Amino acid sequence: MKADLLNALRAAVGPAQVLTRDTHDLEAYERDWRQRAHGRALAVVRPGSTDEVAAVVRACAAHGASLVPQGGNTGLVVGSVPDDSGTQVVLSLQRLNAVRAIDRANLTMTVEAGCVLQAVQQAAEAEGLLFPLSLAAEGSCTIGGNLATNAGGTQVLRYGNARELCLGLEVVTPEGEVWHGLSGLRKDNTGYDLRDLFVGSEGTLGIITAATLKLFPQPAATLTAWASVPSLQAAVDLLGLAQQRLAAGLTGFEVMGQFALSLVARHMPQLRVPLWQDTPYCVLLENSDSEGEDHARAQFEGLLEAAMEQGLVSDAVVAESIAQAHALWHIRESIPLAQAQEGLNIKHDISIPVSRIPAFCDEADALLQREIPGVRLVNFGHLGDGNLHYNVQAPAGADAKYFLQTQESRVNQLVFDTVARYHGSISAEHGVGSLKAGHLPHFKDPVALALMRRIKAALDPHNRFNPGRVLTP
Amino acid sequence: MKADLLNALRAAVGPAQVLTRDTHDLEAYERDWRQRAHGRALAVVRPGSTDEVAAVVRACAAHGASLVPQGGNTGLVVGSVPDDSGTQVVLSLQRLNAVRAIDRANLTMTVEAGCVLQAVQQAAEAEGLLFPLSLAAEGSCTIGGNLATNAGGTQVLRYGNARELCLGLEVVTPEGEVWHGLSGLRKDNTGYDLRDLFVGSEGTLGIITAATLKLFPQPAATLTAWASVPSLQAAVDLLGLAQQRLAAGLTGFEVMGQFALSLVARHMPQLRVPLWQDTPYCVLLENSDSEGEDHARAQFEGLLEAAMEQGLVSDAVVAESIAQAHALWHIRESIPLAQAQEGLNIKHDISIPVSRIPAFCDEADALLQREIPGVRLVNFGHLGDGNLHYNVQAPAGADAKYFLQTQESRVNQLVFDTVARYHGSISAEHGVGSLKAGHLPHFKDPVALALMRRIKAALDPHNRFNPGRVLTP
Repeated sequence: MKADLLNALRAAVGPAQVLTRDTHDLEAYERDWRQRAHGRALAVVRPGSTDEVAAVVRACAAHGASLVPQGGNTGLVVGSVPDDSGTQVVLSLQRLNAVRAIDRANLTMTVEAGCVLQAVQQAAEAEGLLFPLSLAAEGSCTIGGNLATNAGGTQVLRYGNARELCLGLEVVTPEGEVWHGLSGLRKDNTGYDLRDLFVGSEGTLGIITAATLKLFPQPAATLTAWASVPSLQAAVDLLGLAQQRLAAGLTGFEVMGQFALSLVARHMPQLRVPLWQDTPYCVLLENSDSEGEDHARAQFEGLLEAAMEQGLVSDAVVAESIAQAHALWHIRESIPLAQAQEGLNIKHDISIPVSRIPAFCDEADALLQREIPGVRLVNFGHLGDGNLHYNVQAPAGADAKYFLQTQESRVNQLVFDTVARYHGSISAEHGVGSLKAGHLPHFKDPVALALMRRIKAALDPHNRFNPGRVLTP
Repeated sequence: MKADLLNALRAAVGPAQVLTRDTHDLEAYERDWRQRAHGRALAVVRPGSTDEVAAVVRACAAHGASLVPQGGNTGLVVGSVPDDSGTQVVLSLQRLNAVRAIDRANLTMTVEAGCVLQAVQQAAEAEGLLFPLSLAAEGSCTIGGNLATNAGGTQVLRYGNARELCLGLEVVTPEGEVWHGLSGLRKDNTGYDLRDLFVGSEGTLGIITAATLKLFPQPAATLTAWASVPSLQAAVDLLGLAQQRLAAGLTGFEVMGQFALSLVARHMPQLRVPLWQDTPYCVLLENSDSEGEDHARAQFEGLLEAAMEQGLVSDAVVAESIAQAHALWHIRESIPLAQAQEGLNIKHDISIPVSRIPAFCDEADALLQREIPGVRLVNFGHLGDGNLHYNVQAPAGADAKYFLQTQESRVNQLVFDTVARYHGSISAEHGVGSLKAGHLPHFKDPVALALMRRIKAALDPHNRFNPGRVLTP
C-alpha cells in the first residue's frame, strides 16, 4: 500500500523528486520554523509543474493519503509540517519558482507559488515597479505560502494584506483538477469570489500553484522617522494626524514599547536605539513620496512639528540617509531576536480596532501584572493596522522554560479573553494552523465556524488537504 | 398553504410590513431598473431588524418558499426582482437603514444594509471623513446591494471595489441564523474569508443585513482635468504616467470615445462638451490631494505638460472651480442618458487587462463593423480599472427596436468571444443576475463553475435564496 503510493508519486514527478527518509534527511521539511513541532512524513514530493501537482494530488486521492502543502516552511502557527503518523505526503512547491510574466502597463505580474517573496520583490524592482508585501521572513518564505496564509507585514496600512495584492490564482483542487483563475483584472463580477476563499485557507481547500499580483509604481523617495510619544493614546492620535497629512504616502506606522526597545538596547548595543529611555513608546513612521526627497522631507517635518505642537510627539529624528532609514527599521525588526536572547517567551499576534488599543493595553497590562506578578510585556507591532505582537516574557530571573510550561495556556487565556472583550482577533496575520485551531471554537462566531466546516466538507469531503489545520477534526 | 406563509410572515414582521397585490401596488418591487423584466411576487416583506430578517427566512424555509432580497432595486442584470411564478417573497431591506456607529480613530463606520449609498457618503462627510464608493445610482441604491453585487464605480482605481471597502458583515443564512461578523479589523486571519464569499454573491448565499466599512480622510483638494488624446494607446500611456506622478492621488481616470461624446453634444448641447471634435478619445482625470489646491494644481499641470511633450495629450483643460469640475463629471455621467435619447442600445460591462485595451478595441471595432455594417460603438468607461462600457447602437436611421430583437444575441456573442480571447471579463462591475447567468457556462472556467455550484449547494441546499441568479438551475 505504502509502496504503491510511493510508486504512483514517482510516476507523477519522477523518482528523483520523491524524497523518503531512507535516502534523504527530511528534517527541514518536518520541523516547523519555531521548532515547536516535529512531524514524520511518508515522503516529500517536489513537483516541477502545475500538472505534476495535480498528478500528485490524484495519486494521494487514489491511495487515501493526505497532503501537507509547503512553501518556505516559515509559518509561525504549525501549518506546513506533517503530523507524526508517518503517512502524510509533504508537497513542496519550491520547484515551481518561475516568474511567468510581468505586464508593466497593467501593473501586474504572474508568478509561481514557490517564488521566494524577495525574488518577487526583486523581479518587480527590475522593471522599476514595486511589489509591496514585506515581512521578516521575506528571504525564505514563498509567495504561495504568503497567499495561503494571507500574510501581513509592515506595508498593510497602505497596500493591504497579501489578499489585497492578489488579482488571480491558479489552484489545484482536492480532486486534482486545475482551476485556471489567473487574471490581471481589477474588476470581475462573474460569480463567487473563489480567489479570496483560497487565499488564507492555509492549504486546506486547494493548493495555490501560481498567482497574478498587483504592482505599483516605485515611490520617488522613501523617508523614515522615529518619534518618542508620551502615551499609546498619543501614538493613536499621531497615526490619525499622519493619515490626514500624508494620506497614502504613509506606508509604515510601527509602535514599540519601552521594554521591547530596552531588550534591543541590552542585547544589541551596537544598534544604538534612539529616544527610548524617557518614554513609554516610540513610533517608526515611513513616508513614501511620488515627488521626491525634498517634498517627502518637507511633508514629514510639517507633520512632526504639528504633532509636537499638539503634544503627540516629545522628540523625533528623521533619517538623513537610506543607511540611517535601514538602521531604524533594523531596530524594529530586531525586537523578536532580542526577545529570544532574553529567553523563551509567549508570542501573540492580535488585532484590535485602533481606537481601542490604548484601553485594551491598559486593561491587559494590569490584568497580567495582577495575575502573574513580575511578568514582563514586550509590546510592539503594526499600530497602523491595529496589529500588536503583545508578547509575554517571564519575570526577571525566573526559569523561562518552567514559566512557559506552567503559565503559557493561562497567559493565552487571559490575553485572548481580553482581546474578545475588545472585539479583536486572536490571529491578526499569522493564521491558525495547528497552533490555534483548538482556540477557534472559543473565539469564533459559531455560525461562522459552522459555515467554514460546510465549505471544507463541500470542497474537500475526504479531508485530504492539510487536515487538522484551521479546523479541528 | 399560501395563506399560512402570509400569516407566518405577518407574525415575523407585523401585518403592516407584508405587502400583497390585494392591498398595495407592487410595481416598484417587481420591475427591474432597466425595465427588462417584470415579475410577480407572492408578497413584499419589509423587516425592521436583523432578527426580523431571520424570522422571515425561517418562515419561508418552513413553507418551502424562495426569497429575493432587494435593496434599491437599481441593479442592471435583473438580480433583485421576483420571477413570474407569484410564489417568491421579495425581502426588502429598505427599513434597515440606520448608521449604527462611526469610529473616527479606527476610520470605520457600521451601517445597515438598507442605507442609501449617498446617505452613507454623507454620514462619513459629516465627520470630516470620506466613504469613496461612488456610482451613478448613488441616490437610490443601497449599501447592501452595493456589497451583494460588489459594485465598482469611478473611484476603484484608488480605493477598490465595494469588496475592498468592507471589513465586516452581518449576514442571515438560508437557515435563518445570524452570522455576527461585523468587524473593524484590518487584519484578521482566523479562518476562511466568509466576508468576501458573501460580497458579490448577489443574495444567493446569504442576506447581508449590516456592514462595517472603511473610511478615509477627506482630501484637502480635488481637481479635475479633461484631456484629448490622439489614440487609445496614448490614453493607456497617460494612465501609466499619471499613476507614476500622482500615485494614490489619482482617484479617477475615465475614457470617452468621440461618438459617445457626440451623443452628449447632440442631445444635451447645454453641457458644452470640450475638446471632443478633433480627437478619437477624451480622458477625464481626477487628482485628490492631501496638501491643498495649489499643490494639486501644480501636480496636475506638471503631469499634463509632460504628457504633451510625450505626445500623449493634444489639448487639456483643468477645472478652475468645483462647479467646473462637476460640469466635467456631469458630461461623463450623461453618456448613458444621451445614448438612451439616441435610441435603444446594447450595453456591455467588460474588463480587459489595461495593457491590451487598445488591441481589443481595434479588433472588436473592426469585427462589429464588418459583421454589422453601420453599427455605432459607444465606447467609454473606467480605463484606470480596465473597465469599458462598450455599448452598441443601431446604425443611424435603423429601427432600434428591431435591431435589438434581431442582433442583440449576435452582438453579445461577438463582443464576449473577443473579450474571452483577451482574457477579459464579460461582467466587470454589474454582476451576473439572471441576465448573464446563462452566459457563464460558456465564459467561466468549468472548474470554477463546479466549485461555485458546490458552495451554493453547501450553504443553500434547498436553493431558496435568489434562485436562478448567478447559477442557472
